[in-house]
Amino acid sequence: MKIKIGLLGLGTVGGGVHKLLSGRKEAIARQIGSELEIEKILVRDIAKARGLDIPPQLLTTDYREVVNHPEIDIVVELMGGIEPAYQYIRAALQNKKSVVTANKDVIADYGVRLHRLAAEYEADLCYEASVAGGIPVLRGLVQGLASDEIYKIMGIVNGTTNYIMTQMTEAGLDYQTALKQAQVLGFAEPDPTNDVEGLDAARKMAILASLAFSAGIKMETVKVKGISQVTAEDIQAVKEFGYVIKLIGVAKQENGKVEVSVEPTLLRDSHPLATVKNEFNAIYLYGHAVGQTMFYGPGAGEMPTATAVVSDIMEVARNKKLGVGGKGLWQPTAQPVMKTADEIEAKYFLRVVVKDEIGVLNKITEVFSGHQISIENILQKLEKNQNQANIILVTHRLIQSNFEQALLELQKIPGLVDIRSCYKVED
Amino acid sequence: MKIKIGLLGLGTVGGGVHKLLSGRKEAIARQIGSELEIEKILVRDIAKARGLDIPPQLLTTDYREVVNHPEIDIVVELMGGIEPAYQYIRAALQNKKSVVTANKDVIADYGVRLHRLAAEYEADLCYEASVAGGIPVLRGLVQGLASDEIYKIMGIVNGTTNYIMTQMTEAGLDYQTALKQAQVLGFAEPDPTNDVEGLDAARKMAILASLAFSAGIKMETVKVKGISQVTAEDIQAVKEFGYVIKLIGVAKQENGKVEVSVEPTLLRDSHPLATVKNEFNAIYLYGHAVGQTMFYGPGAGEMPTATAVVSDIMEVARNKKLGVGGKGLWQPTAQPVMKTADEIEAKYFLRVVVKDEIGVLNKITEVFSGHQISIENILQKLEKNQNQANIILVTHRLIQSNFEQALLELQKIPGLVDIRSCYKVED
Repeated sequence: MKIKIGLLGLGTVGGGVHKLLSGRKEAIARQIGSELEIEKILVRDIAKARGLDIPPQLLTTDYREVVNHPEIDIVVELMGGIEPAYQYIRAALQNKKSVVTANKDVIADYGVRLHRLAAEYEADLCYEASVAGGIPVLRGLVQGLASDEIYKIMGIVNGTTNYIMTQMTEAGLDYQTALKQAQVLGFAEPDPTNDVEGLDAARKMAILASLAFSAGIKMETVKVKGISQVTAEDIQAVKEFGYVIKLIGVAKQENGKVEVSVEPTLLRDSHPLATVKNEFNAIYLYGHAVGQTMFYGPGAGEMPTATAVVSDIMEVARNKKLGVGGKGLWQPTAQPVMKTADEIEAKYFLRVVVKDEIGVLNKITEVFSGHQISIENILQKLEKNQNQANIILVTHRLIQSNFEQALLELQKIPGLVDIRSCYKVED
Repeated sequence: MKIKIGLLGLGTVGGGVHKLLSGRKEAIARQIGSELEIEKILVRDIAKARGLDIPPQLLTTDYREVVNHPEIDIVVELMGGIEPAYQYIRAALQNKKSVVTANKDVIADYGVRLHRLAAEYEADLCYEASVAGGIPVLRGLVQGLASDEIYKIMGIVNGTTNYIMTQMTEAGLDYQTALKQAQVLGFAEPDPTNDVEGLDAARKMAILASLAFSAGIKMETVKVKGISQVTAEDIQAVKEFGYVIKLIGVAKQENGKVEVSVEPTLLRDSHPLATVKNEFNAIYLYGHAVGQTMFYGPGAGEMPTATAVVSDIMEVARNKKLGVGGKGLWQPTAQPVMKTADEIEAKYFLRVVVKDEIGVLNKITEVFSGHQISIENILQKLEKNQNQANIILVTHRLIQSNFEQALLELQKIPGLVDIRSCYKVED
């Protein structure tokens, strides 16, 4: 039995998928009991040199030759971006073809709808590669930890920002230099906004949270803050308290309410996530029964991402062969209720510059206690050659809305020069 | 549709499985579309107080009431040990009941045979909990990374020894003190042999290697060395070279030949496995396509292990419902060829004590170069108040058999007092 595959897109990941399917053809056939064969590939330019051994008649510029092809069983979407990828995936599912995709944008925005469509047409829909490239974390969540209730996820799910933060921390680079270095090495795009402002990570966290909490979590409900404001000075300052700064996605569910955020966050330097360096990704899961587990690996790249895509293809092919395609699908069982700022609890790190005058510190602590915020740790340091002091503090757990009000009041203290930085702390 | 379960054993993990199945009954039913119900439980003593809410008529002391029960679909074996567990599992499979087990001893010794039996009787056989408790690494290997060729596995798969090594490293304890502490905390058994001599880890590595290399790897072919000879002095000595000592299981496949070992091993202190502390486990995988991934989490304990068992039960139940039980089974496809000592390559760390005499160092390097062993790093240190010197060295990659001969020759050097320690190095 041969299972036929149509590819939409033949860029970096598409090329990797082609290499893996051809290079490991026999091993894969042995494992799943069926041969996998690429039947048609949608490309933009048929004449383009790709360095891949592909018969030209496999290539087409018309997506319908893939999604409507009568012999194709599985459509693999590797184009990226919302449109037209979303329409092509819909068309494939409506033709009862199972879909494997690496497209986090489409899944974050339309995952629930596509799952519904897939169930309706008895097709499979898999997207392991959409989150954390080569790390099989979606399977871990949905199958490996299926019996447990996962109540918290912390993820380093963007390699670009993790590379930049690692270089700032270890080589002492400033943000701009680290970003340029990431661009030279190909870890950051010429326009890095999507990565450095946390949008890419937010989409991945929405997907992880949706699967973990069985609810369609919308990207718009994710609180997002990028890394472009993190300074080398901040990194030094937190080090003295035993912390490192990472761009961390957090998804939590408590008493049926959900919060999802992506922001530069302080972690203890001994935390397993703190040791995830450079372009690597990791997802740290908290379950009531299992306790804490972590999945670590490459978050992007041609072959790691292709591994996830082809593993999905193999699963879909196996289901097809067993006649259970589209039968074991994840479906959201709950409507998510997002927490408000009155319900979100967190710890914060704060660095403020004040005039070196009597009473300023006292006024700051007064503002905090007025908002039921207590302080775990505080340090005051004179700045060189200036009549100013740096006050660095870490709060105990507080209510987010109280903290926001306290920050507004702090700014009115006459002796306060500047709130230099403010980060969430995850202990 | 109700799916009925029979438990063999109601100890720590059995109690955890009962708690999870009853506490998350509705959530599980929602996920798999079937209710799971415990029908019968084999115990040694029906009257024993267990603190679990179990109707007495569910308990039996006769295993046949479980494995022959006409309504039971899935038999869950949580007794441990080879006999009679192995016979009960066989009986269950021969009655066409799928089996979930946490029993690493049975799987390491009889995994291939049981897989064959399961296929014959169209039953499923799952054992995620047998390796690294709550970490879903077997699924990661067999499904998540199915498309890739995993050529090397490094694992911290025994919590007892990792706890002891961590305490020796971080608190400076000696081996005996750390072992006693582990026993007080319940991380080590009164007779710790099975853990500290590496036998438990060896079984888990045999299971991992079998799945990764699609070959039945026998426990007897695993080279095993425990941690009972590791001294606080060694830990200090390796620290100066930037290493930590961990009990590491290694499984490698190159050119169709396999090696599997468990021994105290030096890792760079920046390696992700070096940051796995105390009773935690982690498995580090190397794949040609995916590169490096790691799965981290609790390796034992009532609820983590129960999570893995119940996730397996859910998968088997889903297969049952879809009518594909016993159809997606792993089968060994290759006969493993184990490497000989002439084929195994490794790096070693060596600490020898010599008389502080001219020429001894030269004689040592002569022995090494006579066996094609070159040295990466060497350090000579005078011992206090004695006419002796400590020579510490790290070799480049060498052939195992050459090294064994070199060690024999070293002992004949007149100025050599003692080969104090010798560890494999994984960079």
